[in-house]
Amino acid sequence: MIIVMKTSATPEDIQTVINKVEKMGVKSHLSEGKEKTIIGLVGNVVSISESQVQNFEGVEKVLRVSKPFKLASREFKPEKTEVKVNGVSFGQKKIILIAGPCAVESREQILETAIRVKEAGASILRGGAFKPRTSPYSFQGLKEKGLEFLAEAKEKSGLSIITEVMSPEQVPLVGEVADILQIGARNMQNYALLEAAGKSPKPVLLKRGMMATLEELLMAAEYILSNGNSKVILCERGIRTFEKYTRNTLDMSAVPLLTKLSHLPVCLDPSHAAGVRDLVLPLSKAAVAAGVDGLIIEVHPNPEKALSDGAQSLNFDEFSTLVDKLKPVAEAVDRKV
Amino acid sequence: MIIVMKTSATPEDIQTVINKVEKMGVKSHLSEGKEKTIIGLVGNVVSISESQVQNFEGVEKVLRVSKPFKLASREFKPEKTEVKVNGVSFGQKKIILIAGPCAVESREQILETAIRVKEAGASILRGGAFKPRTSPYSFQGLKEKGLEFLAEAKEKSGLSIITEVMSPEQVPLVGEVADILQIGARNMQNYALLEAAGKSPKPVLLKRGMMATLEELLMAAEYILSNGNSKVILCERGIRTFEKYTRNTLDMSAVPLLTKLSHLPVCLDPSHAAGVRDLVLPLSKAAVAAGVDGLIIEVHPNPEKALSDGAQSLNFDEFSTLVDKLKPVAEAVDRKV
Amino acid sequence: MIIVMKTSATPEDIQTVINKVEKMGVKSHLSEGKEKTIIGLVGNVVSISESQVQNFEGVEKVLRVSKPFKLASREFKPEKTEVKVNGVSFGQKKIILIAGPCAVESREQILETAIRVKEAGASILRGGAFKPRTSPYSFQGLKEKGLEFLAEAKEKSGLSIITEVMSPEQVPLVGEVADILQIGARNMQNYALLEAAGKSPKPVLLKRGMMATLEELLMAAEYILSNGNSKVILCERGIRTFEKYTRNTLDMSAVPLLTKLSHLPVCLDPSHAAGVRDLVLPLSKAAVAAGVDGLIIEVHPNPEKALSDGAQSLNFDEFSTLVDKLKPVAEAVDRKV
Amino acid sequence: MIIVMKTSATPEDIQTVINKVEKMGVKSHLSEGKEKTIIGLVGNVVSISESQVQNFEGVEKVLRVSKPFKLASREFKPEKTEVKVNGVSFGQKKIILIAGPCAVESREQILETAIRVKEAGASILRGGAFKPRTSPYSFQGLKEKGLEFLAEAKEKSGLSIITEVMSPEQVPLVGEVADILQIGARNMQNYALLEAAGKSPKPVLLKRGMMATLEELLMAAEYILSNGNSKVILCERGIRTFEKYTRNTLDMSAVPLLTKLSHLPVCLDPSHAAGVRDLVLPLSKAAVAAGVDGLIIEVHPNPEKALSDGAQSLNFDEFSTLVDKLKPVAEAVDRKV
Repeated sequence: MIIVMKTSATPEDIQTVINKVEKMGVKSHLSEGKEKTIIGLVGNVVSISESQVQNFEGVEKVLRVSKPFKLASREFKPEKTEVKVNGVSFGQKKIILIAGPCAVESREQILETAIRVKEAGASILRGGAFKPRTSPYSFQGLKEKGLEFLAEAKEKSGLSIITEVMSPEQVPLVGEVADILQIGARNMQNYALLEAAGKSPKPVLLKRGMMATLEELLMAAEYILSNGNSKVILCERGIRTFEKYTRNTLDMSAVPLLTKLSHLPVCLDPSHAAGVRDLVLPLSKAAVAAGVDGLIIEVHPNPEKALSDGAQSLNFDEFSTLVDKLKPVAEAVDRKV
Repeated sequence: MIIVMKTSATPEDIQTVINKVEKMGVKSHLSEGKEKTIIGLVGNVVSISESQVQNFEGVEKVLRVSKPFKLASREFKPEKTEVKVNGVSFGQKKIILIAGPCAVESREQILETAIRVKEAGASILRGGAFKPRTSPYSFQGLKEKGLEFLAEAKEKSGLSIITEVMSPEQVPLVGEVADILQIGARNMQNYALLEAAGKSPKPVLLKRGMMATLEELLMAAEYILSNGNSKVILCERGIRTFEKYTRNTLDMSAVPLLTKLSHLPVCLDPSHAAGVRDLVLPLSKAAVAAGVDGLIIEVHPNPEKALSDGAQSLNFDEFSTLVDKLKPVAEAVDRKV
Repeated sequence: MIIVMKTSATPEDIQTVINKVEKMGVKSHLSEGKEKTIIGLVGNVVSISESQVQNFEGVEKVLRVSKPFKLASREFKPEKTEVKVNGVSFGQKKIILIAGPCAVESREQILETAIRVKEAGASILRGGAFKPRTSPYSFQGLKEKGLEFLAEAKEKSGLSIITEVMSPEQVPLVGEVADILQIGARNMQNYALLEAAGKSPKPVLLKRGMMATLEELLMAAEYILSNGNSKVILCERGIRTFEKYTRNTLDMSAVPLLTKLSHLPVCLDPSHAAGVRDLVLPLSKAAVAAGVDGLIIEVHPNPEKALSDGAQSLNFDEFSTLVDKLKPVAEAVDRKV
Repeated sequence: MIIVMKTSATPEDIQTVINKVEKMGVKSHLSEGKEKTIIGLVGNVVSISESQVQNFEGVEKVLRVSKPFKLASREFKPEKTEVKVNGVSFGQKKIILIAGPCAVESREQILETAIRVKEAGASILRGGAFKPRTSPYSFQGLKEKGLEFLAEAKEKSGLSIITEVMSPEQVPLVGEVADILQIGARNMQNYALLEAAGKSPKPVLLKRGMMATLEELLMAAEYILSNGNSKVILCERGIRTFEKYTRNTLDMSAVPLLTKLSHLPVCLDPSHAAGVRDLVLPLSKAAVAAGVDGLIIEVHPNPEKALSDGAQSLNFDEFSTLVDKLKPVAEAVDRKV
């Protein structure tokens, strides 16, 4: 961290700033220029907030040089993290396919989906039991019943299960069935939930908030990591912009950037980003070419009848075609599906 | 809601759509044009999601004409809602001033602030006991101890207390001390929390998420209202944009728009929007002129020493000046401070 | 400007950077810390681009401490600039009202408007002769004929005229009639046009691009100023965000911020920002309270018949009411309308 | 277009609206429901603006069902447009590579680049002679001299040339040298320039403005097309969002969407979108997988010495590697590089 002092700052101001930051547990080194005096901070700077230092008398500007996240960073752990879920590994050569409906709607729906997406090549079954919905009047999921159906689908298909957890007290309940806890975009900065997930033994797939910078996503991951859970999978799913043709704007740069900044595996959800079925295939191909470790694809036995997000869901045949089309792209970048 | 059918839609497609939507409990009326067939929906359309209907065979476009929120709307309740907190009323001629530090840092800090902001004209004391922070390494608040200090500040000053609640299980605990529960921007779509707040007897101040549309804010309010709590105060606090000089971009249009769309009182937080002390006064004046029902101002005995958000906090004298300067503006628009 | 060198930078890298920047005409001072070496630049840093320096071998980060604009800055010219247009002065106690239709549609329309807005209190008549429109199929303005009508309106009413100029070769033609050249939001970074306006003797009202930062607005002003025209008026008119209830999101913070960063007068266009008539009054009041030097209000004899932007136009009575309602607010902040 | 009338609209209001729209040259069909009356418009709706109709007495909402662009749409021309430039074709199986520096800096630089990028597989040489720069103090290009060097590079290498045109009066001059006129992001809505380009016989590469929706990009293309030039190539280059790690947010969905909405070829500029060299390769691979017709890559003999955009430029070896790595990805999606 670098503190640029105002031209008008007195020697006392400068000394006071030095005393204060050193009390916070970091070392400082002073650089007195003709125009500007600069104080550089060295040490555990991660715990110091810019806004607090900005506030000291005589300070013109505070600039963070190092990254504000630590456990999530490549500097802290240079080798890629492998997150294992039963026999499946995120962060290796194989790109993991997660597929299933937005919401568990019935026993038949989820059992049929499990069997069909497994046949097509998926390793993990998704399906929401607890659904965050913008409107209190929309379908909120089958809740406990949905978890039961997921458990049965797991047993029958052998697929691992990922499902969303919406509040800290749901973590143990959902964790009984889920192999991976999903934290949704709206909850990316629900810190009580991040802490509860950080104390769970289960891997966590953390979706980027639609208003979150990549730095904030990594800070949210840091909450989970610093609470003791090292099995975090990051997930890009589109951000909110002014563009209206798509539900969200998929930020494809997130894939190579997160891979560079962090050792954690990186997934991508093209279905939620696009909001339209037609875009799922081209965006999935692009994501594979860009280096993604996993994809989450919405698949529904009958998208037309889906209680939520049908417009962006593939049916079984479309999903099967998608897997076939991804194979050569994966090979072209030395990966496999 | 209006359903525009594709030119290629068959009479069977049209009949199927009609059957489906009528099964959802609304009435339909058909308009067959030369080019397009249009199905209008009448009745409890609020419970039907566009994305589900969009998904039906033969549908080209679904257009919502009526608003997706109901209890929060002016149509549902034409007269302005008055939210009473002890002797204070939001939504009346008097503009309510809420003041205090970002975080409760010590007993002395909050007691002194309570007394001084009351003298200057504030009716309600703010102060975070539980603090949502981007970094797990930043100060997270004094928690239960902070609540104790707030309780004492309330007793000594006679001011009502507003403080943030971050998870459903905190609602009863925080509710013991708080006269108003604050739901922060990051939690605006934390539905478990909205539901818990909806079941509390306490008034709730709901902050707009930094990437939430006004419609989403009103839908979040609808969660609280539909769970039985009618004492909701809306709060604009800036949205995230590309502009970097300010922490957030204050959306001043939110004040007249929310007032028009909804009967709920509307507050504004210029401190968080701007992120810089200098802007708090001009934005507060503007908000008063635009018709706000209350203002939340960060005040700290010594902003330079604040553990969070010091750069945007006023000291006691600055707050007192602000109140003085707001008075003539309030009078100019037939309100008072 | 501060250059932070990588930990891995060699002494040769550091010396090379120093040589390069000194060749660019600035002085450097070196600060060697235990962890990081920092090079500070002093002098005419305004002409050095961060991206170029970022690019040198061994550089980790480049941080601009000073502002990239100069002639537009308060540091360069501390006292407020007064832009005089015939008898009217922008940047003084009186808030200047600019009113008129989006487009000049007919001789009668503009003559009638001129007389009526003058009666109500406007000092300057607006009206587009050349209109930038998203669609090539929309009405593009009356062009030269429109200028003629504006000239007649000026003569008959005594009001000064502001009208938009869309390309460099139009500058002389439009300048024959216009007392103020308007550069629209879409052309804020049309550099050929900025240069042509910079060489004109006429004052220029420069509108903020709908996706431009305030810094970019001031850089665009710098183009005009550095070409020799010091009579620049800045104008906030809303930026593009994700919010859909308003046409644009009015950035009210721009008013106090531009006033602090620059000596140039600051206007605000609530009509374009809001896109809806109902919001024009509350946003105008707010702008006056926030310290604006002028307002641009769309007024049309019969907004229902307007060929463009009717939804956001006031009729004569509404404009007259607006002026009346602004008066007490202006007085409350020691200004007048 | 669909006009929803207010519940309070009188039969006269409705008749008046019908009369007005029919006078605009379209047919209307009326649908009177129990709650709402709806007027559908059929015919040349493209010339009617929503905002004008919105404005009529009794109108609640105006909804555009058809697209506001016509000549650019797939409906108008279902087969893909092939834009031929000398022997090269945009919109065919081969993905066209455009490479070269941000700015022409010297004869040697551009000649060397031309030869090296041709060897590596590029078909077209890019290089700015006239440069739009945020700051008036930054390097603005070699202008006419730069065009001369480009002409020589063309002669020596046999590559076609693309270079930017910044104002209408530059079109003939630049057109003497350029095989493709580039219209930059900042000028996407510079209508005088679009019209001038529309009258030129040269193909035009139109970059999406950083604040422009895809619809607005297609409307800008419509300006060129409707002025008689059918050789338009669309180019995605990133949009402005809140994310700070990248210069812009590349909107990868634009590739399949523009391909679906329009018959025009679609290029992508990963260099400007990312702003960092490391991202150019993964984003290029992703774009190829997503179905792009061409790529624009910044290449510089010595990126460290580049006068602009060096941080995002590849050197010759990096470009050569990129071409090699794109080949298998192109084959995987049945294209070639």
